[in-house]
Amino acid sequence: MNVDQRLESLGIVLPPVPRPVGNYVGGVVSGGLLFMSGCGPRRADGSAITGKLGDGLDVARGYEAARLVGLNMLSNIRDVLGSLDRVERVVKVLGMVNATPGFTATPAVIDGFSDLFVEVFGPERGRGARSAVGMVTLPNEIAVEVEMILQVCA
Amino acid sequence: MNVDQRLESLGIVLPPVPRPVGNYVGGVVSGGLLFMSGCGPRRADGSAITGKLGDGLDVARGYEAARLVGLNMLSNIRDVLGSLDRVERVVKVLGMVNATPGFTATPAVIDGFSDLFVEVFGPERGRGARSAVGMVTLPNEIAVEVEMILQVCA
Amino acid sequence: MNVDQRLESLGIVLPPVPRPVGNYVGGVVSGGLLFMSGCGPRRADGSAITGKLGDGLDVARGYEAARLVGLNMLSNIRDVLGSLDRVERVVKVLGMVNATPGFTATPAVIDGFSDLFVEVFGPERGRGARSAVGMVTLPNEIAVEVEMILQVCA
Repeated sequence: MNVDQRLESLGIVLPPVPRPVGNYVGGVVSGGLLFMSGCGPRRADGSAITGKLGDGLDVARGYEAARLVGLNMLSNIRDVLGSLDRVERVVKVLGMVNATPGFTATPAVIDGFSDLFVEVFGPERGRGARSAVGMVTLPNEIAVEVEMILQVCA
Repeated sequence: MNVDQRLESLGIVLPPVPRPVGNYVGGVVSGGLLFMSGCGPRRADGSAITGKLGDGLDVARGYEAARLVGLNMLSNIRDVLGSLDRVERVVKVLGMVNATPGFTATPAVIDGFSDLFVEVFGPERGRGARSAVGMVTLPNEIAVEVEMILQVCA
Repeated sequence: MNVDQRLESLGIVLPPVPRPVGNYVGGVVSGGLLFMSGCGPRRADGSAITGKLGDGLDVARGYEAARLVGLNMLSNIRDVLGSLDRVERVVKVLGMVNATPGFTATPAVIDGFSDLFVEVFGPERGRGARSAVGMVTLPNEIAVEVEMILQVCA
């Protein structure tokens, strides 16, 4: 079963690929590694989950936002690589949570992203190194942004 | 035309290389990748553009600070590599904006950095993956800090 | 003298390896690079140094927290690699300080981490590229978190 079939069996439909909001590209492959740009919780209609964790958004909503970031990331990875089957494994995730100074459950939020990758690629390939930290603000008020590095084959 | 000639044709003069402000080096090459330390908007006289976006600094001033970060980065890259001609391409940029909780135009600020690299290296080599996010504070009150990864040749 | 002997000669005892607090692993090796997950200032008894720099914690206490992060990082690296002797050099450090908007001495805090690595591996192998920045919040209120990339041999 390839990754697209796996997505279908999980009932997952990827959102369309967004245009970058600045002078950059979605991802760059160099030396067997794919460096992906930061990605937000954009819905298929172009709107996004916005707001701060600790001020109106709770962990459950943040988890949902992080999962939606993951769906966008999968869509972007497929766009850069041509096929998700070229992903050998997740190497590193930097999860950034738009948060108030008192919000401290950033890992539980970013698990929404990580759990999706483990569902899709399995625990061996889908689980990487990670940090999950709090940002004072993110572009366009998005609730969560994630950038990542993956190992890919030619 | 090599990169130094390109800089001259653009009327760009790089600032002197600053001393690191802690126990680290300007950059490290490993496996064909150059990992560059975070770099700030330091002027030739040693002063820097300081302050927070959203509290006294607007997007235009932030863009200017990010461009100045780019000039310092180019100077640091040349110092590490010996020559800017060893740069094959920009791989990844992490743009960090010193910002208030309500400032959300971080990508427009970091474009000041990215636009410079595209001017100097062209769109194929100069445009990489990127995140542009908000930090609650940066060293010595600098307005913008950027770290980056480049692909380099021996 | 191998690295474990070096640690012993310095009187350094590494803390036990903690369980990750989310769906991730301690580190991933890919293409000669080791990408390590973010790590906090966890004491041997499982408690951690918590709080914000600029609000109750001063630079000396932050430096101490960053050094403790380094001890945990060494323990995690040994766990991932099997032996610290596989470390060829530090490539890149991202030091994240839990800070108030007005705290600006983040590099002096992260030197607590960097100084430890230079003590253990020496200035050639132990000093890498670095950024040291301020985060609005970190997991479970920890005062400092660091993630890093190292060059490793097979």
